[in-house]
Amino acid sequence: MHDKKFITGIRRWERDKPKPTSQKDELVIEEPVEIRVDTQSVCVTMRTPGEDEELAAGFLLSEGLVKRRGDILKIQPLHRDDAGNVIDVFLAPGVVLNLAQLTRHVFASSSCGLCGKATIKAVHQHFSPIKCRWEVPARTLLELPEQLFRSQKCFRRTGGLHAAGIFTRKGKLLVLREDVGRHNAVDKVLGWGLLQNFLPFDRHILVVSGRASFEIMQKALAARLAVVCAISAPSSLAVEFARKSAQTLAGFVREGRMNIYSKPKRVV
Amino acid sequence: MHDKKFITGIRRWERDKPKPTSQKDELVIEEPVEIRVDTQSVCVTMRTPGEDEELAAGFLLSEGLVKRRGDILKIQPLHRDDAGNVIDVFLAPGVVLNLAQLTRHVFASSSCGLCGKATIKAVHQHFSPIKCRWEVPARTLLELPEQLFRSQKCFRRTGGLHAAGIFTRKGKLLVLREDVGRHNAVDKVLGWGLLQNFLPFDRHILVVSGRASFEIMQKALAARLAVVCAISAPSSLAVEFARKSAQTLAGFVREGRMNIYSKPKRVV
Repeated sequence: MHDKKFITGIRRWERDKPKPTSQKDELVIEEPVEIRVDTQSVCVTMRTPGEDEELAAGFLLSEGLVKRRGDILKIQPLHRDDAGNVIDVFLAPGVVLNLAQLTRHVFASSSCGLCGKATIKAVHQHFSPIKCRWEVPARTLLELPEQLFRSQKCFRRTGGLHAAGIFTRKGKLLVLREDVGRHNAVDKVLGWGLLQNFLPFDRHILVVSGRASFEIMQKALAARLAVVCAISAPSSLAVEFARKSAQTLAGFVREGRMNIYSKPKRVV
Repeated sequence: MHDKKFITGIRRWERDKPKPTSQKDELVIEEPVEIRVDTQSVCVTMRTPGEDEELAAGFLLSEGLVKRRGDILKIQPLHRDDAGNVIDVFLAPGVVLNLAQLTRHVFASSSCGLCGKATIKAVHQHFSPIKCRWEVPARTLLELPEQLFRSQKCFRRTGGLHAAGIFTRKGKLLVLREDVGRHNAVDKVLGWGLLQNFLPFDRHILVVSGRASFEIMQKALAARLAVVCAISAPSSLAVEFARKSAQTLAGFVREGRMNIYSKPKRVV
């Protein structure tokens, strides 16, 4: 495991306590890395730093690009270039790279990969930070996960679904969607808003059943959501993104407690 | 929510009961869908069927390809063609499609997308089904998640990480990796095996801290893993894939209980 730590100040709210306390919290690190094979970009993925050579080797194995240890000539340790974090893999002579068979997180050219564009700055070229100034009571936010869970139909039957819900500032559930993919559940509630012509969601709250990643915060910003509540942990990049986007990010919102990671003044 | 249900027979083991019982279990449905804009393929993603028009609209919104309701002329309801499930979106006249700005799950041509290739059959062209015949005691499997959790360092600090571990048939932990992405944690343990020259893992067990998706089972097969234990639910496609690959898939392995979804005879 990598030794890098991301420790940040948070505000912790608890039900029945009128004021929050300031605390320190450690976040799981999320960062993009680009995997290159014989200098060609084959994959850009968000990952936790550490064991990046293994990550690259395992990716190539599971995509069928290499079959055995000897197919890899060498892996250059993680380095940074203009595009971001890069892992360079070099194949043994005679091993043919067949990019047509790739399945996942793969881009035709690195110019459209996450390294180049999905930095916070690049996202802000498309979606500017939030400017609205409304406030929401902590006790409203603390109730939302329970409401979301009560409304989830399929999860209770299968135990296997992520949920995303859009709530009003008063805590009323507008729409709930479930999906095997976290990002899909969020895309579905945003798509509902777009198709119903309810966008922007600039007086609304997004609640997600799992963790808050960079991707979730980026989607929320696209719909102008100023407040995001996650029932589990946020990642480091989600928090950095939320701060630069002036979004309020609440994590571990459960059992009458929550941590506010960014823009805490919106919660009263 | 869609009304499709996927109900399947399972074997349920409980600690201190010498024999399993046969039961029915409902699975969350996971299936690939391709999103096309003006007939061009822009995204292939695994998703739970239902509200696919919203999924497509939300994806286009969060990728910045559309900004408002009026940018979408129409969305053709889900249909199937040779490539699989397709959602066709048509933009309003004058809305320019800028594919260079896409971030996620995006493929230059549909020929390398999941629809075309990541059917179970296509995966089996690269990775043949498992043939090995060894057995593993149920009580060994029931202990693995607890061992995995005890060895997870970063999760206990941050609460935000997925873990994957490779165990021997006797229940000894060989390697554990943690990552913000489920698939990355699995890639790291497989990459460790490849780089240490320990592959194939044909007498080993993969344990994952979360759910078992199609992607996890495909990666396991690439490393020749015959047994996969997931602490949470498996998806429908994970189970179908496991059955056709002759992999034993155990789900909800926790608190002294587990469900066996495929190849149950390997568990004794």
